[in-house]
Amino acid sequence: MNGNFTFHNPTKLHFGEKAMEALAGELKNYGPVVQLSYGGGSIKKNGIYDQVVAALESAGKTVVEDGGVMSNPTLERMLEGAAKAKANNVDLILAVGGGSTIDYAKAVSVSAWCEEDPWEKYYVRFEEPSCRIIPVGSVLTMVGTGSEMNGGNVISNHKANIKVGKVFGPAVYPKFSILNPRFTFTVPRRQMVAGFFDIMSHILEQYFSGTDDNTSDYIAEGLMRSLVVSSRKALENPEDYEARSNIMWTATWALNTLIAMGKTTDWEVHMIGHAVGALTDATHGMTLSAVSLPYYRLIKPFGLNKFARFAVNVWGIAADGKGDEQLADEGLAALEAWMREIGVAMNITELGATEEMIPKIADATFLLDGGYKQLTRDEVISILRESL
Amino acid sequence: MNGNFTFHNPTKLHFGEKAMEALAGELKNYGPVVQLSYGGGSIKKNGIYDQVVAALESAGKTVVEDGGVMSNPTLERMLEGAAKAKANNVDLILAVGGGSTIDYAKAVSVSAWCEEDPWEKYYVRFEEPSCRIIPVGSVLTMVGTGSEMNGGNVISNHKANIKVGKVFGPAVYPKFSILNPRFTFTVPRRQMVAGFFDIMSHILEQYFSGTDDNTSDYIAEGLMRSLVVSSRKALENPEDYEARSNIMWTATWALNTLIAMGKTTDWEVHMIGHAVGALTDATHGMTLSAVSLPYYRLIKPFGLNKFARFAVNVWGIAADGKGDEQLADEGLAALEAWMREIGVAMNITELGATEEMIPKIADATFLLDGGYKQLTRDEVISILRESL
Repeated sequence: MNGNFTFHNPTKLHFGEKAMEALAGELKNYGPVVQLSYGGGSIKKNGIYDQVVAALESAGKTVVEDGGVMSNPTLERMLEGAAKAKANNVDLILAVGGGSTIDYAKAVSVSAWCEEDPWEKYYVRFEEPSCRIIPVGSVLTMVGTGSEMNGGNVISNHKANIKVGKVFGPAVYPKFSILNPRFTFTVPRRQMVAGFFDIMSHILEQYFSGTDDNTSDYIAEGLMRSLVVSSRKALENPEDYEARSNIMWTATWALNTLIAMGKTTDWEVHMIGHAVGALTDATHGMTLSAVSLPYYRLIKPFGLNKFARFAVNVWGIAADGKGDEQLADEGLAALEAWMREIGVAMNITELGATEEMIPKIADATFLLDGGYKQLTRDEVISILRESL
Repeated sequence: MNGNFTFHNPTKLHFGEKAMEALAGELKNYGPVVQLSYGGGSIKKNGIYDQVVAALESAGKTVVEDGGVMSNPTLERMLEGAAKAKANNVDLILAVGGGSTIDYAKAVSVSAWCEEDPWEKYYVRFEEPSCRIIPVGSVLTMVGTGSEMNGGNVISNHKANIKVGKVFGPAVYPKFSILNPRFTFTVPRRQMVAGFFDIMSHILEQYFSGTDDNTSDYIAEGLMRSLVVSSRKALENPEDYEARSNIMWTATWALNTLIAMGKTTDWEVHMIGHAVGALTDATHGMTLSAVSLPYYRLIKPFGLNKFARFAVNVWGIAADGKGDEQLADEGLAALEAWMREIGVAMNITELGATEEMIPKIADATFLLDGGYKQLTRDEVISILRESL
């Protein structure tokens, strides 16, 4: 590990089948008004909504209803939620749902009392909040984004045709998150699978960067190996508690800053994926899967040794005197085979993108420094063509 | 992962060559009186003491000197420190040193204002503090114990001839820890090597337990692989910054509760090691190395599958159709070879123990449930005989 960094992740995680029992204790730490933010109503069908409301009522809280958060939260909806939180002077935002709902709650938490234009301040100038921040708690019902233990959030601005991800510091992390693997059993198969790839992509974005020897990469390899084993079991039986709990835990640690410590990272797949999502409104994890293989095959020569290591340490491919080139190819072939096995989107055509959209997607793609290579616009276009 | 658990680790870690620069900012969060706890004076020789005192003076703090903490902190010394902290009404205990000094600071932090007998309350009845807890910060100069990011501490009671480890909750964790890998360069070789094995032992104690499939074990495997690679580099060149930083980071994550989440653990090696230490006053890491192989060879049949997995996933031994028994033996042989390579104590005779002491050591050994098998006193005696 090189460089200087600070690790600080104060989120308290309550994990397990009985995790919801911890909610009552957490609620004692906050004032009387709770904004209850959630998505499209599936939590009303599966009983989670009732459990949460019962806990809020037992704790004597006033509930500010804030349902209907969409899966790619928009700036407009976020500003509505912020106005509601301010008008009701809420003491806690309790987000019940997946990453989109928790992302939304964090954005609301720093926008309600923000005296400037939140879009400009956070998503254009990428500043930290200077206003009062409303505490956020979460009850996670869908895994993938890691939003339950980090400061990340992605907001879609349809006027500008962009999705922007902003990563806030620990003051914006959820104060507590409740993770019950059983709550993920009823997630539709396609969402579950998109979550699997989202987790894998988070790890890959942090892993495929740098040529140093770094403990973070060894932890990342462990998380990937656990994910591959458990994703296969969960596909066979979505109610395999052990597998679903391993996946839920892996998702949290894949994106809570740990495996980025002391190293450079990439995130270019997310930049392309966000651009695809902004134009197609496709599920986040599927936009990542659709562009990953063409991206990694393009950057492979620039980080060959790491791609070879990936083959051996993640997929258990025997080195047997093979060269790095061959090992790297076998590693990416193993990744592709796993992706086909779990059934993620393998191209952007499935997601509704067309050849005509490609220049627009390329224009909407931020070009970062890259893990091993900074892309040009032409290379983004070539990746997108390969992804059709 | 099975079972229900809470993960909460609020310690802020400042890591890297410039980590000390963060001390000034941290000191602003505390009142004017700081008890400066440290060990035998090596920090005065290597300049760390001067850096810390300069930061304290710049921040306008009143320093309560508390040097001379011994390497296995005694109950008497801890009570002296607690009386000093109370008498000076200190606002922060700043521990500068290795695990012993930080352990000591935590024990003082919960004892200064404790109205009961701290030994009885914490180390006999194993209760949590109910009094005011003085915040602790640390500047780490020697790696191994993980004390910089957990609630653990070990106190020696010479009257009773026992060392007792107590693990406090997050309220007692250091509020911040400063980890500069360069500070570990001047640690004597034998201490460095004892630290390597202490780290490995912490991981093994959590890994060798349970038959479930658990993400925590995959993370543990990653940490062990990183440790083996970096320990070899550090032995060759103790000033290899990358290696020393990887080891420092691995030590922290080996014992900050992460790799124990959702699983059972063992800790019997530590129980035997503490008993050896109580009678010989030998370095903690060496007491663990001296008894580990006989212990693991004895419990191997009861956790055979995990020992086989250890061989493949940690040591890269090819399974090649070998049975679990053979793989397990090859894994333990690889562990033994690494131990001999780094030069840890391979028996308790080197540590000053004699055959006559064995019954006393066995009597001082707590018998836990065990990772795969609960030991009998006779088995402890047989392990100790094998360790002579």
